[in-house]
Amino acid sequence: MPLSLRADKIPRASIQRLAVYLQRLERMLLEGAELVSSEMLAGDCEINAAQIRKDLTYFGEFGVRGVGYNVQRLISCIKMALGIDRPWNCVLLGVGNMGSALLNHREFRRGQYSIIAVFDSDPLKIGQSISGLKVRDCKSLPEYIVGQDVQIGIIATPPDKAQIMADYLVEVGIRGLLNFASAHVFAPDEVFVENVDFCNHLYALSFKISQQDD
Amino acid sequence: MPLSLRADKIPRASIQRLAVYLQRLERMLLEGAELVSSEMLAGDCEINAAQIRKDLTYFGEFGVRGVGYNVQRLISCIKMALGIDRPWNCVLLGVGNMGSALLNHREFRRGQYSIIAVFDSDPLKIGQSISGLKVRDCKSLPEYIVGQDVQIGIIATPPDKAQIMADYLVEVGIRGLLNFASAHVFAPDEVFVENVDFCNHLYALSFKISQQDD
Repeated sequence: MPLSLRADKIPRASIQRLAVYLQRLERMLLEGAELVSSEMLAGDCEINAAQIRKDLTYFGEFGVRGVGYNVQRLISCIKMALGIDRPWNCVLLGVGNMGSALLNHREFRRGQYSIIAVFDSDPLKIGQSISGLKVRDCKSLPEYIVGQDVQIGIIATPPDKAQIMADYLVEVGIRGLLNFASAHVFAPDEVFVENVDFCNHLYALSFKISQQDD
Repeated sequence: MPLSLRADKIPRASIQRLAVYLQRLERMLLEGAELVSSEMLAGDCEINAAQIRKDLTYFGEFGVRGVGYNVQRLISCIKMALGIDRPWNCVLLGVGNMGSALLNHREFRRGQYSIIAVFDSDPLKIGQSISGLKVRDCKSLPEYIVGQDVQIGIIATPPDKAQIMADYLVEVGIRGLLNFASAHVFAPDEVFVENVDFCNHLYALSFKISQQDD
């Protein structure tokens, strides 16, 4: 299988593009498409066809020239390459507005990534039920985690609590942190951190609009 | 002024790092710091000092060797380079969980980026007050926008409404779109789009954890 030979060399930028292709391909599949050319995918993704073909060579050469890629097979390959061909269990820390938004987000309702437990330190929230999950006391995280196959911790706390929660998740053995708090968090090298920081996006917009004005 | 000579050449990756430096510097300023070396900033940002010095050369050479950078002046330079040395007015479309979270987000409470009006198409929400702002009917966007200096439209609708809202914002003359919906949106070349898509972050985590397992 050529996939396993090459997947470890996929650069970060390609992973981001693969994620875009995946979203598009899944929509195409729903719409009944069986075959897709790199040009069709390009038109839909605003990434050029040559780049797409290059990204897809990480999986070996299974596109047929003049015919294209089998949509279902391409989806499977991308999912396998990204490691999302299996379910991932997540815990959510912080059920304010952002945490509640995430609980209802489509990405956590499709089954690939499941939020299996939610935690908060606010006594008024602990014990309440949000989107069908009981809010647990943050202090109960270590005992909860034992025997659960949880890989990802989602941080949606106020910024001043984010690093404390990150340290806590690392301590109980969580290997990936997805941080939505408006403060970057850090972790030891063996734990992976993704900071979702939309300030960068705002700054990028301001920058580009300002440049256009000059 | 060396800044204006060079700012147009700042690559996207540097802009993202500048945004990180800015957050760190503002915290340092609050903590009373007057001078910062690239090494100090590096330790705090997990970006190496050489990269930081390189990024800061876009503003000309104003760091003093062996002394460092004046924190306040560095903040001003980065803000000017990013175009955030002036206020930016935003409108928010969609006040579900995500929209409500954004209204309370620190970034929109600091005054640099202000959400000045919120819109929804749900009759049950229109007319209600959320975080001190009256929810307006989406249909009233064109008449609202006239005479208001709005540069950025924030989309926080369900995914199936996102592109419709993007088209609508473009039509009324908004120049930058920040999209939080779980579907990418597209706009003409002269309008800038930033899709905040945390699926990519999830995929990146899965990918890295899977690689570590192999």
